[in-house]
Amino acid sequence: MNDATIGKKSASIFVLEIKLFMYYSDYLQLDKILGAQNLESDKQDKHAHDEMLFIVIHQTYELWFKQIIFEARTVHAILAKPSINDNSPELQTAVRRLNRVIEILKVLVHQIDVLETMTSLDFLDFRDMLRPASGFQSMQFKEFEALLGLKMEARHGKEYYTSQLRPDDTQKVQDHSKTPSLLELMNEWLERLPFFDNNELWMGWEGMNFWYVYRELYLQSLGEGEKKNIEVFDEMFMTDESREGRSLSDKARRAALFIFLYRDYPILQNPFRLINQLLEIDELLATWRWRHVNMVSRMIGMRVGTGGSTGKGYLREAALKHYVFSEFAELSSFLIERNKLPKLTPALEKEMGFRH
Amino acid sequence: MNDATIGKKSASIFVLEIKLFMYYSDYLQLDKILGAQNLESDKQDKHAHDEMLFIVIHQTYELWFKQIIFEARTVHAILAKPSINDNSPELQTAVRRLNRVIEILKVLVHQIDVLETMTSLDFLDFRDMLRPASGFQSMQFKEFEALLGLKMEARHGKEYYTSQLRPDDTQKVQDHSKTPSLLELMNEWLERLPFFDNNELWMGWEGMNFWYVYRELYLQSLGEGEKKNIEVFDEMFMTDESREGRSLSDKARRAALFIFLYRDYPILQNPFRLINQLLEIDELLATWRWRHVNMVSRMIGMRVGTGGSTGKGYLREAALKHYVFSEFAELSSFLIERNKLPKLTPALEKEMGFRH
Amino acid sequence: MNDATIGKKSASIFVLEIKLFMYYSDYLQLDKILGAQNLESDKQDKHAHDEMLFIVIHQTYELWFKQIIFEARTVHAILAKPSINDNSPELQTAVRRLNRVIEILKVLVHQIDVLETMTSLDFLDFRDMLRPASGFQSMQFKEFEALLGLKMEARHGKEYYTSQLRPDDTQKVQDHSKTPSLLELMNEWLERLPFFDNNELWMGWEGMNFWYVYRELYLQSLGEGEKKNIEVFDEMFMTDESREGRSLSDKARRAALFIFLYRDYPILQNPFRLINQLLEIDELLATWRWRHVNMVSRMIGMRVGTGGSTGKGYLREAALKHYVFSEFAELSSFLIERNKLPKLTPALEKEMGFRH
Amino acid sequence: MNDATIGKKSASIFVLEIKLFMYYSDYLQLDKILGAQNLESDKQDKHAHDEMLFIVIHQTYELWFKQIIFEARTVHAILAKPSINDNSPELQTAVRRLNRVIEILKVLVHQIDVLETMTSLDFLDFRDMLRPASGFQSMQFKEFEALLGLKMEARHGKEYYTSQLRPDDTQKVQDHSKTPSLLELMNEWLERLPFFDNNELWMGWEGMNFWYVYRELYLQSLGEGEKKNIEVFDEMFMTDESREGRSLSDKARRAALFIFLYRDYPILQNPFRLINQLLEIDELLATWRWRHVNMVSRMIGMRVGTGGSTGKGYLREAALKHYVFSEFAELSSFLIERNKLPKLTPALEKEMGFRH
Repeated sequence: MNDATIGKKSASIFVLEIKLFMYYSDYLQLDKILGAQNLESDKQDKHAHDEMLFIVIHQTYELWFKQIIFEARTVHAILAKPSINDNSPELQTAVRRLNRVIEILKVLVHQIDVLETMTSLDFLDFRDMLRPASGFQSMQFKEFEALLGLKMEARHGKEYYTSQLRPDDTQKVQDHSKTPSLLELMNEWLERLPFFDNNELWMGWEGMNFWYVYRELYLQSLGEGEKKNIEVFDEMFMTDESREGRSLSDKARRAALFIFLYRDYPILQNPFRLINQLLEIDELLATWRWRHVNMVSRMIGMRVGTGGSTGKGYLREAALKHYVFSEFAELSSFLIERNKLPKLTPALEKEMGFRH
Repeated sequence: MNDATIGKKSASIFVLEIKLFMYYSDYLQLDKILGAQNLESDKQDKHAHDEMLFIVIHQTYELWFKQIIFEARTVHAILAKPSINDNSPELQTAVRRLNRVIEILKVLVHQIDVLETMTSLDFLDFRDMLRPASGFQSMQFKEFEALLGLKMEARHGKEYYTSQLRPDDTQKVQDHSKTPSLLELMNEWLERLPFFDNNELWMGWEGMNFWYVYRELYLQSLGEGEKKNIEVFDEMFMTDESREGRSLSDKARRAALFIFLYRDYPILQNPFRLINQLLEIDELLATWRWRHVNMVSRMIGMRVGTGGSTGKGYLREAALKHYVFSEFAELSSFLIERNKLPKLTPALEKEMGFRH
Repeated sequence: MNDATIGKKSASIFVLEIKLFMYYSDYLQLDKILGAQNLESDKQDKHAHDEMLFIVIHQTYELWFKQIIFEARTVHAILAKPSINDNSPELQTAVRRLNRVIEILKVLVHQIDVLETMTSLDFLDFRDMLRPASGFQSMQFKEFEALLGLKMEARHGKEYYTSQLRPDDTQKVQDHSKTPSLLELMNEWLERLPFFDNNELWMGWEGMNFWYVYRELYLQSLGEGEKKNIEVFDEMFMTDESREGRSLSDKARRAALFIFLYRDYPILQNPFRLINQLLEIDELLATWRWRHVNMVSRMIGMRVGTGGSTGKGYLREAALKHYVFSEFAELSSFLIERNKLPKLTPALEKEMGFRH
Repeated sequence: MNDATIGKKSASIFVLEIKLFMYYSDYLQLDKILGAQNLESDKQDKHAHDEMLFIVIHQTYELWFKQIIFEARTVHAILAKPSINDNSPELQTAVRRLNRVIEILKVLVHQIDVLETMTSLDFLDFRDMLRPASGFQSMQFKEFEALLGLKMEARHGKEYYTSQLRPDDTQKVQDHSKTPSLLELMNEWLERLPFFDNNELWMGWEGMNFWYVYRELYLQSLGEGEKKNIEVFDEMFMTDESREGRSLSDKARRAALFIFLYRDYPILQNPFRLINQLLEIDELLATWRWRHVNMVSRMIGMRVGTGGSTGKGYLREAALKHYVFSEFAELSSFLIERNKLPKLTPALEKEMGFRH
């Protein structure tokens, strides 16, 4: 495709031919992407320079939301399988996909720096023109929250879901809330971790079950003022009763605690990574909301957001309450020092090792 | 200092001579810096690998705290002057120093990523050996908070200040709290901004005072449900009475609002930057505390911190309450659209411009 | 728009009504933005999971390129004015816009972390399907380079501009190269800085011109092995001859050096910021290219890029050669210590100060 | 240690008692850390404000260097073992330690932002007082480079090692260069990967050896202009001859390529991570040097560094040449598409899986 030779062809032939080749701008559909910025302030003949940034940054957010939903869905698909072959790449794939989600979330947090180059006075130039649209209406973000495990009943400001969303969008949030979430899939996957089913494997500490031994060691590890923690331990790990308001069963919780404690065994490494990634995603979303609150607070002071909510208040409460994986974070309270851990029985060790 | 020539000299002469030259490791006193890591776990013969990171990262934090205090003090000195010559570099210097503080705070937030490579189990290996020491005891951080304007009475968890600090340190925090803070110095500096003293300058809007005109425009800008804001406006800008619990006087607040509104006039640019930098410092400290809460929450779950406090609870409350400059952030609520701003009188404009 | 009231309306009326309101997804044209990802691997029925990331990240890059071009053009418009009133907000606006460009470039550098979650094997799954499209074909990036001041003759790999671009795109790069660049506008703006015209103002150091005095001080500041630098100084600042291969005239260069030296005078602060921002943009673009080289190097090893160029080689050379503002960076070589600077005459000081 | 009870004790008893407790400032030896900043400009009675930053930032760099060396040495110890039990946590530990090194290196790159708040004029205030000390004299950094695998003969500017270092430091660099590096340990570890020894395991593709089959597939994957690559392939993977200037043997290289290709098998995941981490360390060091070059270039223009070298030139060449792990990066050139990979024999698969 040399300049000189092309010159000799007629334009119409050229157009035909070029389509056979892949070209960067066609492949990326840049006509759509770069043609989707119509400033409301321009339509009203009151050009506000900073509106372009406002549009572009939200569009990049939405593109990234699409990507993290795309990744998260494949993780769902893997965890939703009746069983995951430890020798297959599946768990590893889930870990790598979540790692990508984490890297993207870091960029999303970073992007707030760009939005902070817009001052309140700059925003005022076009702010009223956007009412009642608001970031609250980002359906992709709500879908991502739901994919993780944020249920409708746990969402802050439920009234906004009817007052600020189109009815079909309200319905969509409801629907997302009903499909199995990552948290639920994790619970089920933890419950069915194969060697956890085999009760025999868990005996062998001088005739006792591992968990009774561990409970005793945990009790010993508690300082004077902490003894009451054993009651929480019993309630969380030893009852096998389902409890209102809990997402993890005792069985799943034991599996997760075991993973925390013996994470260095090869077979537990990916499970350990997985749980930690979920905690990191929780943290990053919390940080994103938090920085968002602080920015909005500086930008609009004590006023209400474009959507009519007190944007700042909503974000602040969401930052404080919308953790999805805190039941995993709580497990840290029930660890004991590594050098006091019960040594695993050969039977259990064999179960967890490489054949080699 | 060539290798070959040196070879000819006796060792003892060489040692003498080298001292005359500046050498990197001497200049930086690396013997002290790199010789200050004694692992408690080593002393107790229970080497815990991650304790080195724990020590080193805290030492880097303290080095950076020293630097930001060093910078902040020079900003204090500038603002504490009876008057700042607008034609001198002083205000500009203050802006550049605070900018450095901001860049350092960004690194401090980032460093939490490094600490997060330590898991709860790794931390447990040496955690109990450190009791009751805790990050709460960082006197430099408390000094920095006080330099900004955090008063003893506004600190969360006042009981920790006696239970967890050595008496002389408790006293130091009390003392820091009494010296003029950046917030107080800003208030005084805003109050004495020169052309604000001259009442005549503020007349000239068809015989009215600027602030009455502005008040009217602000009232017009309020939407249906917002009309009550005018009462807050009156209380904050129009009374000139001092009020319990407020750090800024009405006079200072008017000056700050004027700076927000007319920031593009050359003489107001550095003041505008200054206020924004203080807001950014508030934000970065809040983000640092916030990320800290999340990390601690993952690291120690629901347990108490090494210092006996519920570390997580303390940090969370501090993150939510220890804002120092929120009275500046609130000003955003009282802006009006740029195109509706009262045009300044020639007299006022002249006052604010370059002679050139 | 309350849920209860909406319920009473028929669906068709509702649709009509909702269009009167602004809605987030309409405002952002999310149908276009989120509908522009068609995986080539899907078309060929060989779904490659990572192609989605590849498309999305490039689309975010292009959105940001649109934004930085949008900002840069307004800076051009400001600097292209016959004169900039120091008392107007114009220069300040230019500084703030470039600051935004800088914050965006930092995000662009950061985004490479996301692309690095794709491994070479993942890329191989769809790489051949994209040929001969390549990032080299990003017209917006080339436009941004040209807006800064990268001329056609300074571009590395000129042959690619005909072999890899559509003829109309080749032409566009040529055209961009001809419009006045930021570097050229800066040169002209520096040349016409008002008080630089007035020769009288520059006399007054015991009858001598400032620049002769400065030249002497610079000569004194040079160490033994550095004396030859004075010839370079003479060539760069004292000749007023235009020279092949130089973008800044001696006059502009003197103005810039003066700004570096006396930047603390209020009137020189924004000019100082402006020059530093251009240097920072140069640095960030170089870092972006550099990280890009390293990533590509890991991703495709020693192979040629999808566009047929040795992608890595091109990027590496561009990273090393495509600096636009290095003539400003060089000025650092000609500074002297602050405490040795000639004290400005009252006449000159007056010229540069605030009237107040 | 309650305030009320303490009040009753005499001061001297208290001092005795407090020593029994751990206190933050004692634990961290803050007296040493915060007492190690003596400004040279103060000694010479020419206080230069920015010298404090210069000292503090270099001290934080050295603290972090201490930490990354500490981590790297434990990775050495693991890889230096005659064999690593795949079922032990060792490899996993190595991966986690290198991950920490990577997070620290990211902070080190970020810190350059802080140094960039110092302008050339600020630096000039104390620059000459430091001569001939320079960052080149950081022995820890040189040790870290050597630990990775940078040999004396590969270092740029060998003359500086005698002209700018104290003789004992020159010797230390030489010594570091002789101890086994991470690159050498990786080579040996790859060579002895257990199932690579067993020739039988590698047969079974219709009677052929895996590598002949792979070679054929690679050849088929090459495009028209790329056919010559097969010669490079043969030289790199098929000869088993040692070659001048190569750090990896053919055997190690085959193992590494196999890891790249079949990384999803559980037993290959940590090896794959390990190699990628080394590449990332290479990249981060290159980026650190690169940003350093750009900063120095802006700071001192074309002048020589404080150590007498042309600091900028040295850093630039080091950035371009001091890659340690590029032989791993090159492997990307020899991959084929995943869907064309030879299916592993059951015998080989069994060898690599979990027992479970």
